[in-house]
Amino acid sequence: MPEHTTASRLRLSGLCFLLQILTIILFAVFVRYSPEGSPSLCSQQLNCSWKNQDSGFQHPRFRDVHLQALLGFGLLVAFLSRYGLGSTAISILIVAFAIQWAVLIQGFLYFFLNGKIYVGAQSMVSADFCTAAILISTGAVLGRGNPVQMLLLTLLGVTLFTLNEYILLSLMGVSDSGGSLTVHTFGAYFGLMVSRILHQPHTDKRKEQQDTGHQPDVFAVVGTIYLWIFWPSFTSATTVRHNTEPWAVLNTYFSLAASTLATFVLSPVLYEESTLRMVQIQDATLASVAMMGMAGEMLVTPFGALIAGFLAGLIPPLGFRFLTPVLRSRLKTQDTCGVHNVHGLPGILGALLGTLLTALATADAYGGRLELVFPLVAQGSRTATDQALCQLCALPITLLLATLGGFLTG
Amino acid sequence: MPEHTTASRLRLSGLCFLLQILTIILFAVFVRYSPEGSPSLCSQQLNCSWKNQDSGFQHPRFRDVHLQALLGFGLLVAFLSRYGLGSTAISILIVAFAIQWAVLIQGFLYFFLNGKIYVGAQSMVSADFCTAAILISTGAVLGRGNPVQMLLLTLLGVTLFTLNEYILLSLMGVSDSGGSLTVHTFGAYFGLMVSRILHQPHTDKRKEQQDTGHQPDVFAVVGTIYLWIFWPSFTSATTVRHNTEPWAVLNTYFSLAASTLATFVLSPVLYEESTLRMVQIQDATLASVAMMGMAGEMLVTPFGALIAGFLAGLIPPLGFRFLTPVLRSRLKTQDTCGVHNVHGLPGILGALLGTLLTALATADAYGGRLELVFPLVAQGSRTATDQALCQLCALPITLLLATLGGFLTG
Amino acid sequence: MPEHTTASRLRLSGLCFLLQILTIILFAVFVRYSPEGSPSLCSQQLNCSWKNQDSGFQHPRFRDVHLQALLGFGLLVAFLSRYGLGSTAISILIVAFAIQWAVLIQGFLYFFLNGKIYVGAQSMVSADFCTAAILISTGAVLGRGNPVQMLLLTLLGVTLFTLNEYILLSLMGVSDSGGSLTVHTFGAYFGLMVSRILHQPHTDKRKEQQDTGHQPDVFAVVGTIYLWIFWPSFTSATTVRHNTEPWAVLNTYFSLAASTLATFVLSPVLYEESTLRMVQIQDATLASVAMMGMAGEMLVTPFGALIAGFLAGLIPPLGFRFLTPVLRSRLKTQDTCGVHNVHGLPGILGALLGTLLTALATADAYGGRLELVFPLVAQGSRTATDQALCQLCALPITLLLATLGGFLTG
Repeated sequence: MPEHTTASRLRLSGLCFLLQILTIILFAVFVRYSPEGSPSLCSQQLNCSWKNQDSGFQHPRFRDVHLQALLGFGLLVAFLSRYGLGSTAISILIVAFAIQWAVLIQGFLYFFLNGKIYVGAQSMVSADFCTAAILISTGAVLGRGNPVQMLLLTLLGVTLFTLNEYILLSLMGVSDSGGSLTVHTFGAYFGLMVSRILHQPHTDKRKEQQDTGHQPDVFAVVGTIYLWIFWPSFTSATTVRHNTEPWAVLNTYFSLAASTLATFVLSPVLYEESTLRMVQIQDATLASVAMMGMAGEMLVTPFGALIAGFLAGLIPPLGFRFLTPVLRSRLKTQDTCGVHNVHGLPGILGALLGTLLTALATADAYGGRLELVFPLVAQGSRTATDQALCQLCALPITLLLATLGGFLTG
Repeated sequence: MPEHTTASRLRLSGLCFLLQILTIILFAVFVRYSPEGSPSLCSQQLNCSWKNQDSGFQHPRFRDVHLQALLGFGLLVAFLSRYGLGSTAISILIVAFAIQWAVLIQGFLYFFLNGKIYVGAQSMVSADFCTAAILISTGAVLGRGNPVQMLLLTLLGVTLFTLNEYILLSLMGVSDSGGSLTVHTFGAYFGLMVSRILHQPHTDKRKEQQDTGHQPDVFAVVGTIYLWIFWPSFTSATTVRHNTEPWAVLNTYFSLAASTLATFVLSPVLYEESTLRMVQIQDATLASVAMMGMAGEMLVTPFGALIAGFLAGLIPPLGFRFLTPVLRSRLKTQDTCGVHNVHGLPGILGALLGTLLTALATADAYGGRLELVFPLVAQGSRTATDQALCQLCALPITLLLATLGGFLTG
Repeated sequence: MPEHTTASRLRLSGLCFLLQILTIILFAVFVRYSPEGSPSLCSQQLNCSWKNQDSGFQHPRFRDVHLQALLGFGLLVAFLSRYGLGSTAISILIVAFAIQWAVLIQGFLYFFLNGKIYVGAQSMVSADFCTAAILISTGAVLGRGNPVQMLLLTLLGVTLFTLNEYILLSLMGVSDSGGSLTVHTFGAYFGLMVSRILHQPHTDKRKEQQDTGHQPDVFAVVGTIYLWIFWPSFTSATTVRHNTEPWAVLNTYFSLAASTLATFVLSPVLYEESTLRMVQIQDATLASVAMMGMAGEMLVTPFGALIAGFLAGLIPPLGFRFLTPVLRSRLKTQDTCGVHNVHGLPGILGALLGTLLTALATADAYGGRLELVFPLVAQGSRTATDQALCQLCALPITLLLATLGGFLTG
């Protein structure tokens, strides 16, 4: 069917053109660079909910902004490499469009003033977070859905992600600096729901053979190393200041190390093959960072990070062994890249861990940190228990939005 | 012809040895580390034209020097990966020699005082820029010319590059922080001219088959990702200060995103193949950064960056389709890596865009930035129109020097 | 022998589990995050020998801690890529365990106060150094020894490394910021000794064929580039401050460039093959950084770095050609990855060079730097000659500890 492919290629070309023109027009009308004195301006007039909630953003000019954006893309690298070479072109298209769209949508919610969106370095970082969630969703749908569907999924996914993030961070005052909920859980369940709707029994059978073993180990090696290098800094992108010790970074490192050992503990027991595949190590690594997303800045003892990382490292092997077949046969949901095991479940566990830690938070243990991690608690307008309830409520809200959104998108 | 190869290998070995000994002697005679108090010393005695023109260099000690050098090499990575595995050894040789030579030559022009060259972190960064231009030239000649010729090309190319840069930045006061003219345009046309002179009809026929499809897609993927990660910071390496929003970085990001979409728009229309090759995306990425080199710090609206990036992304597919065959058949110029489409044309367009933006620059739109971007205009010694004329004149000067130099080198 | 492999896999699984549980318990009992005001607290009560010796660590909060840890792992990447794809899984396991263990062991020696270890960013950086040494050792043993043996080697190696480092840096006041002695020489000879003990004549014959040509050139390219990008900053991780020119970085760059040229000079003379293998370039690169480890911050002239780098670049080709066959046949020591040529010899030469430079150090040449590089000399409690003697004594101590430790471990 050559006419069909030509037509679909031209449709993709046309859609890209339309979306780009639309973005350019919207940018021309709404987006401006924030003036030099923006922070002071912001504190008086602008809807600064994002900045107030996310304490790390209060002084973006004092930190090395380069590094942040660089790290954001380091993260994207890890995803790209996970999905294999064949899908890289479409992933890069999604990244390119999601970043533009996320700057627009997030701009309307966070940086809107006098009819203009003022963008700066922090817009770029939050657009990176959003793009990460979309790439996770893509991982569940990969192999089904043509590029045009993928672009539409990006369009809707970015909008829903921003809505969810706005509700959680700005309205509810939830602390989720590394995105356990907003990035990992939302991304995974949104993608899974879309994948469920797009389910076509006959296509899947055929695809299945292709997908298995498709990913070469070279990419898994490179991806794992990138995660080790870049993610600790990404988890703490919005939290660490110059004058505090980087707990979030250290917690993430310890958790990464423990999750790797966990893979070596579990996979010889579960699988018969004598050699460990690098992909399994990468999955454990991803799971541990998903787990650390919310709790990273809250853990006050290193051994907590080791235990959490170890548990996170146990999830993907167990999930692939026992859960994925159930998902596939019962719920008719195919999960091309195992997004549920790697992002979904660890994200939920990370959120529960974060809730527990919030409930246990005392001014004593945190010291000057309390204001950074839980500004509302430090100001006295909330108790730690209230904050924990908020964190807990955020979980079903995210799940609901993700599944509902995925259903509609599908 | 084994004797021939043995002789040529020994000639390469001898040349490397001679050049290294020469460099060591010149370093021993001339080069010293700049003393601790160099900046103050500089402002009084030293020929500080480079520092004054290139405002970012005034306070090199306040920025993270590590990061810069790191980014510089990140850029080189992208080039290396573009030229494929087979040519990496020779590329690394060129990098290793070009850096030493550039430190020497640029030292004589910029950092010469009392018979000594005082090197510091900024010498390293400018040597990186120079090496980037040489690598671009190499891209045009690759496959023709043996390693010995390549080393001689490096020797002459570095000297001419530094001369051109000195005329543009120091004597004419042109703003070209990202190197649209000095790096991309000079590198491309210098390489093309050398390639023109080295043209041998019979050899080319044979080589052509080898070159096509030689570059594996893995490298294109890695190269594209590196460009996304590192280049925005590279473009702004000499401009961004701690206390301003990083417009150059953001402009480059937006332009990268738009150029990627442009590739997806155009390539299905031009080519019959159903899948997009990663190399095309990488070419669009490179073109958009070449375009942003000069204009990156001048654009004051994000949608301008989107439009410029979109246009830049259109150049390489069109160029490869329509221009390269003409170049090859009419002008007898073979362009192994498509340097003209990817660096040459976008560099020229970038320079024209920069000129336009300079002419439109007003103190009103730039605010405190004016002094950083156009110090001479801010000081009142030039009007914006004069500055634009200077920027425009820089283009033919660069082209003239590049082609003349390439002719002589060839 | 399938039962055998199953048993050994389960033994590995069990050992990982036990070690992880052990580490978690030790962390729970001993390790805490350092409180916010740690530096001031440290200067009064804590055993701050590390911090005083290693001047760079005095103000860890003023530097970008992210970057350091990132660079540390960049270094590990280079090693991983050197040992080929097949061994990556086991290398990552070793990294994951060595980091946890190094934090514990180093914590007991450096950061122990009131029965608790207070970890911070600097613990992470020194754990990285330690892991690098262990990876070098692993390189010598690779291919012999199963994963369980490797883990036990890590266990003992980390302990001995820390002991050696403690004796050198804290007790003897040796300056070795880049780890010529502590990392390269110790790692190489420890690994070689273990390899000597594990020697089994029949196995080696069979392995030999497998090992040769096992390493694809792609990895060598990526590894070389990573070294160029990351190592200059790693060498200076503990030395550079914001207000001094980064001599260590520049010295390392110049030395890298010169060593690359040296490879091109020597390898055509030694080998008959017409093409230079990328692995040779990578070996030269590694040798030059091993050489620069101690001398990096001491060299006061750039041409010194060029000469040292050139000499270092000559070692690996000569070593592989003449020394490795002797080692293999006479001393029955198989050196899978050429660790002796790449790390051992250059490390020793680097230490001797460092000693020479120390003896020549005068307050005149160093200026304000003297206090940073040789704090004891600057304080007047030692002459430059005494310091040089200390540096010289550190070499046999390191060699003794490494071989003795390797003998016991084997």
